[in-house]
Amino acid sequence: MVEPFRNYLTSKAAFTDAELEQLEARAITRKLKRREYLLRKGDVCRYMAFVVSGSLRLYRTDEAAQEHILRFAIENWWITDPESFRIGLPAQGTIEALEDTRVLLWSKENFELVKREVPAFHALENQLAGHYVDAQVNRLYTAISYSAEERYQEFVRAFPDFYQRIPLHMIASYLGVSRETLSRIRKQTGL
Amino acid sequence: MVEPFRNYLTSKAAFTDAELEQLEARAITRKLKRREYLLRKGDVCRYMAFVVSGSLRLYRTDEAAQEHILRFAIENWWITDPESFRIGLPAQGTIEALEDTRVLLWSKENFELVKREVPAFHALENQLAGHYVDAQVNRLYTAISYSAEERYQEFVRAFPDFYQRIPLHMIASYLGVSRETLSRIRKQTGL
Repeated sequence: MVEPFRNYLTSKAAFTDAELEQLEARAITRKLKRREYLLRKGDVCRYMAFVVSGSLRLYRTDEAAQEHILRFAIENWWITDPESFRIGLPAQGTIEALEDTRVLLWSKENFELVKREVPAFHALENQLAGHYVDAQVNRLYTAISYSAEERYQEFVRAFPDFYQRIPLHMIASYLGVSRETLSRIRKQTGL
Repeated sequence: MVEPFRNYLTSKAAFTDAELEQLEARAITRKLKRREYLLRKGDVCRYMAFVVSGSLRLYRTDEAAQEHILRFAIENWWITDPESFRIGLPAQGTIEALEDTRVLLWSKENFELVKREVPAFHALENQLAGHYVDAQVNRLYTAISYSAEERYQEFVRAFPDFYQRIPLHMIASYLGVSRETLSRIRKQTGL
């Protein structure tokens, strides 16, 4: 049994031991080295991933080959390319490990199956899908309404430890500001 | 029977006449004058709305009382404040009619009920929820990666008729640019 996943689940809802084992039996474990890809742009995203340890980013590349980070995922977070996973079309995004990382992976078939087998997990997944929508709406709101300073402060608040574990240029990419702007902000705010 | 809603549904999936009537029986019709509110910030968003005619916007107001438009909805679109509708907490957003508008409204209870009563509608709603997530991710991507010009062109492409029906300052608010920047872009692109 993968302890962090068990701890995560039991902190969220009541699961029997049989259900916890069922959930894990449908998953495969994968270890990724730093900078290794979980998904490459153009491939179909076949997995829903739970991060046991380490961290990943989901990004898209524009025509000028610049990377724009849509999402980070750290321990106890879920990550996938939602559109590709849902429809089975080639992904627009790339998912890459930022550190040595361990994930649990469910194929689409197994993910659907386990939701039917474990109703408490289905309920949890519905709740998480709702949170995900809210988080996307909030992130969009900050992107169109917050100043670069406010976006950085929000990021530090949302990822209190993580923001010191990743390179500055990735935070800049996530916030949609230049590296120079981010450096200036960090000097001003002292964070 | 509200014809546009029936046409919308039958264009999306196969529904029996009884199912179409069931779906509508659970809804109430409401007419809004231009600038009338469907939801005010701080109130709980009790309804999922389908736009029969007219248009609305969902926006949030920042501390400087500036409005930031998260979403437009025109004929055949759905709109709600997703977080408030889901959890029942006071809404951060405001929903306002931009033109004289007619909507069908389902309370949360009736919306859940009708999804159980009409499985084809449940399936459609799941699909729409997926599209909504994809649209949010795409909008976030354009917000952090596209230039103001590209965002405007994307907007015109996404709302080919609508963009001529609403005031310029609202398009600017949706795109996250100043009115002056938008005027300059419009002159340059000729759109």
